Amino acid sequence: MEKYGVAASRYPTQFPRNQWYVAGLARDFGRVLQQRWLLDEPVCFYRREDGTPVALADRCIHRQMPLTLGRLKGDDVECGYHGILFAADGRARKVPSQKHVPDRCRVRAYPVVESGGLLWIWMGDADRADAASIPGHPWLDSPQWRVVGGTLHMNCRAQLLNENLLDLSHVSYLHPDSIGTDDVAEADVETEIEDRRVRVTRDMHDVMAPPAFEKVLGLSGRVDRKQVAEYFPPGFHVSHLDVKPAGATDESATFRHKAIHCITPERGKSAHYFWLLTRQYRIDDDEIDHLWLQAIPRVLEQDIVASEAIEEVLAAYEPEYPPEINIKVDAGPLAARRIIARMVAEESAEER
Amino acid sequence: MEKYGVAASRYPTQFPRNQWYVAGLARDFGRVLQQRWLLDEPVCFYRREDGTPVALADRCIHRQMPLTLGRLKGDDVECGYHGILFAADGRARKVPSQKHVPDRCRVRAYPVVESGGLLWIWMGDADRADAASIPGHPWLDSPQWRVVGGTLHMNCRAQLLNENLLDLSHVSYLHPDSIGTDDVAEADVETEIEDRRVRVTRDMHDVMAPPAFEKVLGLSGRVDRKQVAEYFPPGFHVSHLDVKPAGATDESATFRHKAIHCITPERGKSAHYFWLLTRQYRIDDDEIDHLWLQAIPRVLEQDIVASEAIEEVLAAYEPEYPPEINIKVDAGPLAARRIIARMVAEESAEER
Amino acid sequence: MEKYGVAASRYPTQFPRNQWYVAGLARDFGRVLQQRWLLDEPVCFYRREDGTPVALADRCIHRQMPLTLGRLKGDDVECGYHGILFAADGRARKVPSQKHVPDRCRVRAYPVVESGGLLWIWMGDADRADAASIPGHPWLDSPQWRVVGGTLHMNCRAQLLNENLLDLSHVSYLHPDSIGTDDVAEADVETEIEDRRVRVTRDMHDVMAPPAFEKVLGLSGRVDRKQVAEYFPPGFHVSHLDVKPAGATDESATFRHKAIHCITPERGKSAHYFWLLTRQYRIDDDEIDHLWLQAIPRVLEQDIVASEAIEEVLAAYEPEYPPEINIKVDAGPLAARRIIARMVAEESAEER
Repeated sequence: MEKYGVAASRYPTQFPRNQWYVAGLARDFGRVLQQRWLLDEPVCFYRREDGTPVALADRCIHRQMPLTLGRLKGDDVECGYHGILFAADGRARKVPSQKHVPDRCRVRAYPVVESGGLLWIWMGDADRADAASIPGHPWLDSPQWRVVGGTLHMNCRAQLLNENLLDLSHVSYLHPDSIGTDDVAEADVETEIEDRRVRVTRDMHDVMAPPAFEKVLGLSGRVDRKQVAEYFPPGFHVSHLDVKPAGATDESATFRHKAIHCITPERGKSAHYFWLLTRQYRIDDDEIDHLWLQAIPRVLEQDIVASEAIEEVLAAYEPEYPPEINIKVDAGPLAARRIIARMVAEESAEER
Repeated sequence: MEKYGVAASRYPTQFPRNQWYVAGLARDFGRVLQQRWLLDEPVCFYRREDGTPVALADRCIHRQMPLTLGRLKGDDVECGYHGILFAADGRARKVPSQKHVPDRCRVRAYPVVESGGLLWIWMGDADRADAASIPGHPWLDSPQWRVVGGTLHMNCRAQLLNENLLDLSHVSYLHPDSIGTDDVAEADVETEIEDRRVRVTRDMHDVMAPPAFEKVLGLSGRVDRKQVAEYFPPGFHVSHLDVKPAGATDESATFRHKAIHCITPERGKSAHYFWLLTRQYRIDDDEIDHLWLQAIPRVLEQDIVASEAIEEVLAAYEPEYPPEINIKVDAGPLAARRIIARMVAEESAEER
Repeated sequence: MEKYGVAASRYPTQFPRNQWYVAGLARDFGRVLQQRWLLDEPVCFYRREDGTPVALADRCIHRQMPLTLGRLKGDDVECGYHGILFAADGRARKVPSQKHVPDRCRVRAYPVVESGGLLWIWMGDADRADAASIPGHPWLDSPQWRVVGGTLHMNCRAQLLNENLLDLSHVSYLHPDSIGTDDVAEADVETEIEDRRVRVTRDMHDVMAPPAFEKVLGLSGRVDRKQVAEYFPPGFHVSHLDVKPAGATDESATFRHKAIHCITPERGKSAHYFWLLTRQYRIDDDEIDHLWLQAIPRVLEQDIVASEAIEEVLAAYEPEYPPEINIKVDAGPLAARRIIARMVAEESAEER
């Protein structure tokens, strides 16, 4: 591990492309053309008549017109400028005013997979896309877990959130009105770093319950609380959050949650933030859904406000970088930074 | 002609300066100082007491104060900062607080010509300005033609509109609610390319009338329709538009129009769009004026929306350029691109 | 002195850092964290419990979080992201989740001095800060002078205002509705240039009173009017303004003012403009306070509008610079430009 106090490597300036990213909640996409920028590319999303999701480069190969300004015709898209008709695999079917459809007249089709209520997209070489490499997420498809979720947007680089999620000591200071208490920052941390995963564990016994636990779970006073932040680069996070009355030994007294955070670079210094919260208790209780649907975006907005404020500082120093130091809790975030850098370097080496 | 499918030369990054551009509708200018940026230069427009139009560099040679923030005094302009008084030829008449008026104390005066209800400006070397090289526009001054017009603005490069106007196949897809039908895109096209003119002709017999023809002209069902798009680089377009009931042989049954489009680069990636529509029928009918004054800006705004969307895509790839292919209908647009590039190259060679 | 008509050296692109700048009116700062950018750096201001002002770099050394988004705890500031606690001297007292507080865990503390109702800040090497080098301003602390003031902001480079204030011929053209008459621009000017001061004097006898004098002072008709604009680089200006009925010999008939202008670069092409007006007459008359508090911002906003318009022109030509000439009244402004350039060059030489 990098030694504390040694100047951190900087934030990655690129993200790897031969990876699965979350393009949005599955429910965001339908029988309508929808533009979303991902990793600096405009993508046109829609569903075929049979519901299969489609992602095409959102710029006509002829004159860069966004296809999303055109028309959905069955499973095809007609460009709204000069009428070239593209099939869902990106090949042109028709070029008005000429009979020949050149083979090069096609737009890129991105591999997509719908799974766990999320739409996953592969931003790199389509031949290398393997759905098996999507990180597991069994609770998102299980009838024993209840899921709520939403979509947020950030005017800052994606990596700021990737690192935020790997140092949960921040909840003590950034979220004291909801999920933070002093205990979190002071808890011992265990960081496990693998090739394609970082895991940061805080196991807290007999600590104060934060305000949100009382409000949503009816838990006040002393609790046992375990946080495991798992990061699957480049942008998928699972925070395993278990809480129970302090010392309770009855397994059924534990409130289990998985908080899923999907951080996808958008354009330059902005990113998408798709979140889900699953729970294994009171799964038919709409009131709990409602409470989390209110509480979570408030918490995440605090993260976004902090990250955007940091982005503004960083931007003012570009292309230089202001001095920075690392502390003990940065082991996880710095590992994330190194993995991204390594992924980018590997891709770059392969292209050569 | 360039072969289809071969990568297009890119959009021109510069426009020639030793050319006449349209600075606006003549009625836009009066006894008031008015700023308009043209080809990345701020220009101060006004009329002398006798009505003659004047165009001066809109930055005082002393400290760059826009003259348009000063005062019109008779035929002169007084800078609103330190009071230097400039005559309509750009020479300083008075420098307050000193007796000597340095010869170098002058601002550039641009040659201007008022003709056809338009104000033409020469953005280059004044000695080379020759009003005879302004493209002809007899219908704009003729009592047999009735003119309506207006001013629009676009947040995209001028060339996007120059090319839009030379490939009218787009009306089928971008303007189906007004002037487009499928017939237009499918019609045979004849492209004539000269040194200083591009002409694209679509002669359509016995085709469906688009919605606007019924609304304005009372023409529905089958019509004969002829479009000739003429481009006089760098930014003057005349679309000759004739329409009559299908098969009508009586010349008086033809509705004749000239749609004049004047595309002038403004600043960086923005442009002015001045338009006029002249017609040779019902020239005293205010109702027809009113209908075209409503219909035309709606059509042109669709072109602007498309062009601005394309600009946004292009901007995201700069300084690189996304891949692009050409199709048959691009003969006219590509010729326009080459003429602009040649004009710029010739100017650059002359300066050396 | 530089000869008129010879191309001016350009505006300085940097300002010296080993200098005192005004950070604001003293009343702007209190027991709250407040961000202000100065010379392209974010600064966190607050007062200790005993009222002493503090200025810290407004970015946590850990991850660039603005400290102003944290919490004031006694005399210390707790970062709102990961809870590092900084003392008023910038040293960390506590790093949550670890016992060791690294020596490098500190933020920069800027020397500040509160004097004359202003907060002065030293943006360079703290060891070289000497309060004795702050320009004198006895009237700001004297019971015989009454002070009103305010804070303005400009979207243009600071130097535009530094030069505006050294060529008061502009009041005739930019402020004719308040403090300008033709006499000002036409008055003889005496310019004295020292190493660290520029003084421009206009002594006007038997001239017309401008509108503001009648409104505020009850002085109309002919007056004797003396303007001495003193500039203490890099950004402190004292305009000594005396006015009396023309020919009056009774000293008590003179209305004496000192207009204090503090121009401090903010970020890139923007600046702070802090102003004070002191007077030596009717010092207990709130109505006079009120009249000046209304009149002065209106005048200064005219300067800002002009400067911002010039900035827009300059920006369009960057990195080039449009042609420019100097005239007689520019002796003071050009001297200011040279002093700034010299200060920057000296600092740069010292650093080598």
